[in-house]
Amino acid sequence: MNFPSQDELVLLPLGGAGEIGMNFNAYGFGPPDDRKWLIVDCGVLFGRETDTPGVDLIMPDIRYLAEQRENVLAMVLTHAHEDHIGAIGHLWPDLKCPIYATPFTARLIVDKLAEVGLIDRARVNVVPLGGKLKFGPFDIEYISITHSIPEPNALAIRTPLGMVVHTGDWKLDPDPLIGDPTDGDAFRRLGDEGALALVCDSTNALVQGHSGSEARVKESLSQLIGTLKGRVAVTGFASNVARLDTIAKAARANGRDVALVGRSMHRITGAAKATGYLADFPTTIDEADAAHLPPSRVLYLCTGSQGEPRAALARIASGDHPNVALGPGDAVIFSSRIIPGNDIAIHELHNKLSALGVEVLTVEDHFVHVSGHPCREELSEMYRWVRPKVAVPVHGELRHMSEHARLARSLQVPQAVVIENGQMLRLAPGRAQVIDEVPSGRVHLDGRVKVEAGVGVARNRRAIGYAGFIGITLVLDQKGRIAGEPAIMLEGIPEAVHGDIHDAVAEAVRRYNPKKGDEDALKEAVRRAARRRAADVWGKKPVTRVEVIWI
Amino acid sequence: MNFPSQDELVLLPLGGAGEIGMNFNAYGFGPPDDRKWLIVDCGVLFGRETDTPGVDLIMPDIRYLAEQRENVLAMVLTHAHEDHIGAIGHLWPDLKCPIYATPFTARLIVDKLAEVGLIDRARVNVVPLGGKLKFGPFDIEYISITHSIPEPNALAIRTPLGMVVHTGDWKLDPDPLIGDPTDGDAFRRLGDEGALALVCDSTNALVQGHSGSEARVKESLSQLIGTLKGRVAVTGFASNVARLDTIAKAARANGRDVALVGRSMHRITGAAKATGYLADFPTTIDEADAAHLPPSRVLYLCTGSQGEPRAALARIASGDHPNVALGPGDAVIFSSRIIPGNDIAIHELHNKLSALGVEVLTVEDHFVHVSGHPCREELSEMYRWVRPKVAVPVHGELRHMSEHARLARSLQVPQAVVIENGQMLRLAPGRAQVIDEVPSGRVHLDGRVKVEAGVGVARNRRAIGYAGFIGITLVLDQKGRIAGEPAIMLEGIPEAVHGDIHDAVAEAVRRYNPKKGDEDALKEAVRRAARRRAADVWGKKPVTRVEVIWI
Repeated sequence: MNFPSQDELVLLPLGGAGEIGMNFNAYGFGPPDDRKWLIVDCGVLFGRETDTPGVDLIMPDIRYLAEQRENVLAMVLTHAHEDHIGAIGHLWPDLKCPIYATPFTARLIVDKLAEVGLIDRARVNVVPLGGKLKFGPFDIEYISITHSIPEPNALAIRTPLGMVVHTGDWKLDPDPLIGDPTDGDAFRRLGDEGALALVCDSTNALVQGHSGSEARVKESLSQLIGTLKGRVAVTGFASNVARLDTIAKAARANGRDVALVGRSMHRITGAAKATGYLADFPTTIDEADAAHLPPSRVLYLCTGSQGEPRAALARIASGDHPNVALGPGDAVIFSSRIIPGNDIAIHELHNKLSALGVEVLTVEDHFVHVSGHPCREELSEMYRWVRPKVAVPVHGELRHMSEHARLARSLQVPQAVVIENGQMLRLAPGRAQVIDEVPSGRVHLDGRVKVEAGVGVARNRRAIGYAGFIGITLVLDQKGRIAGEPAIMLEGIPEAVHGDIHDAVAEAVRRYNPKKGDEDALKEAVRRAARRRAADVWGKKPVTRVEVIWI
Repeated sequence: MNFPSQDELVLLPLGGAGEIGMNFNAYGFGPPDDRKWLIVDCGVLFGRETDTPGVDLIMPDIRYLAEQRENVLAMVLTHAHEDHIGAIGHLWPDLKCPIYATPFTARLIVDKLAEVGLIDRARVNVVPLGGKLKFGPFDIEYISITHSIPEPNALAIRTPLGMVVHTGDWKLDPDPLIGDPTDGDAFRRLGDEGALALVCDSTNALVQGHSGSEARVKESLSQLIGTLKGRVAVTGFASNVARLDTIAKAARANGRDVALVGRSMHRITGAAKATGYLADFPTTIDEADAAHLPPSRVLYLCTGSQGEPRAALARIASGDHPNVALGPGDAVIFSSRIIPGNDIAIHELHNKLSALGVEVLTVEDHFVHVSGHPCREELSEMYRWVRPKVAVPVHGELRHMSEHARLARSLQVPQAVVIENGQMLRLAPGRAQVIDEVPSGRVHLDGRVKVEAGVGVARNRRAIGYAGFIGITLVLDQKGRIAGEPAIMLEGIPEAVHGDIHDAVAEAVRRYNPKKGDEDALKEAVRRAARRRAADVWGKKPVTRVEVIWI
């Protein structure tokens, strides 16, 4: 039996529709009870100490697809940023599908799989730039675009029910330094062919104008470095290979040798060279040798622009880097923006550098950075090229996606739909609409263990982080009588409150009548007495547990 | 005996020299063994969930002055912001000195003292604008200036060894709307008289140009509100009374009635009216009545611009405000900047408003806010007026103070000194220099209890917030033998790790030999076994405690 009329084309974001990070989109094709799935990107979100203390990485909950993994045809990656590939090593075992990426991206994915011991099981297939793939109903064409990393790709995904243009992360740059400028004609041809939907980056949908050109950053950085006399350190994202090249050449133009400082600087430049980039990158010198050169002849290219405590720049600022020391007369250039949530850590780094007498130069006062995401003029250009029937903003928080949708409507896109993770959007047939809501959410990488966010492990830690912990253990003998003294653990509770809590426990224990009471009633009475006393005296209600040992 | 030659004039910041907030400066005069002290400002810093989870307020550690409180002559306040007066209610009991402030500031201090039940003990003396005070060697003149609150004051502090100009928080505004424009002549006269030191606000020392005029915000806001059709809510700091007036008049100019929403809006406008401000403030309507007006006739003036979870705007955005509801077609204007550390909370608020279909307008795209602190052009102007021998930047992190000092030197101030909290700077006689380092630091208001930061209560909570907690209680009988089963509490540790930790405890207990072992050895062995197993399996080392109950 075959009812082709039942076929549907759906988009199911499980990450990225509601946050910048954790990008994970699935395209489904087929009848509702037998959809084939194509996954585009598989990224992480970085945990924040406020919301999720102790959680390094956050990943999408993909159980819905894992349960039907025999229908998952492939995972294709648009580019190598962590928010697009970072979860592969953790989620691939639930999917076991083939992986496809262009050479530079593929190389970094292989590194990632090797780290988690999956290199012999997960197969990474290399797609040439501009390459085409076919998986069941999905015909995929890679289209080179520009972003802040080598080999960013948009995807044209053709299906029997129409074509989706999935942009990945992108910007327009007439002179990107690495890779060709974006081929507007290619997107215009997709528009001429007829695009059902444009699924597009929303990161800068709130920002007027144009993101700016890397070539202008190069000029500006070169000029700025020319004004500096002492040692210069420049920090930025290692994955922005064009920026590394920019900085290295600006250094050379000013007679400075470049030393790479920080593990990812070496890792990324290695991967870039191995895949044919950075052919004319200046020869770098060892960071230890750089210390012996005159200050005016050195430029350190450092990791740590976001204030990461273990990165090179943080160690330099704290004076405990083994090979690099900066002091009065030296300067640090932050060739990067402040990612939301990192401001305090970055300012702390600025303060430490200031304390050393180092001058700090940032994007606030100098033209030393451009964004890798499209601002409103670029988004408008893309909509003029592709002319989709439906705009589906992704890669943004709700505020970005809502404004992106508003912009698309203002450009006369017939329909713009804001969906959240887990909402299944039918793109065809008919007008686009949400037809289902599937289990979704976040999974924490907590230490080395994956934990569903909903279980509340991090939430419990956060509660103790706020209000402290009371742990009380009582001993009961075989007649149910209290034996010995209660053991009371008070964590994160001011000393001044301890006596009161001890008193409350003692009173509650005295009130216990072994003839009437049972263990649960005793535990609950003690728990409530301790917690209430803490609240009365201290003003906070600690997380409180009571255990009983029977002897 | 009298050796006037021994007299020294010193500045001792105990807060604010190293952070924006917690301002607390002490001026000392006399011989080293008998200095008289004048305190200028007594503010708080707000705690951050990352560094100090569960701490609402942070105050300076003033034990050095408390120990010699008979020599503390007075506390004078420059203006009523929390980072200048917020600690009075908590620290005054350690000082018990008279308090002096201008009328509006005094009124808010009285409110604060009433809250903590000190109103009958602490005396607040009202100083008229431009008033003069004399305490021992200190002759003090209040000089009106401009800032983002009514009645900001600089202080000219004259002593037998010279005059200090202490700016407080300030800016220059040709048309401040409340209060007169800053009287440049007054500062020029101080310069003519001869100023030893300028102790000056560093907040915007990294910002080029000029902070801008409130009158221009008024024009711009009025125009912007004119373009909006639905309900409009504007949020900003309640203490910025000129801004409240600006917004209310922009509302009236567009035919909108104003409703105040949020407790501090009512509290501050009340204090302002009671002290003679806001005489022509439009009559406000009740927030409940406003709901019955056509959307185009209403403007809500709301607290909560920093994403504070219990403030009016957060409740509106969550749809649980009793009287105010916003939806599609409505707009919220953030007439404020993002204070560092608040970006995530503010963005979350934007996301919630976007989810309701509300348009969010901010300083990113609209001219709806100006800073209350001097940018570099204003700082330069002040230095040209006062021409001090010594510049002492305060009210800033190290990065702000360092750059401020660099600016002062570029303006040919002979000496610019960056000092940190607890460093005692001798201003006269002789060249300014640090002559002592006194006990200083931070005190947390943790719940309702004051705790020295160094004690580590918040640090312990933060450690548990990151790595969880293991609490183990063992029972020993009178022969030192283990009785019953160990009670194990595991908090914030993934379920998948629990079995391993239980096993490790059981193994350690089995290895215990009551004939040889002692209690401490047992506890340490169990503690290490549990913690090590958690580290091996999970990758994190929980805070771990072991208690023993003897029966």
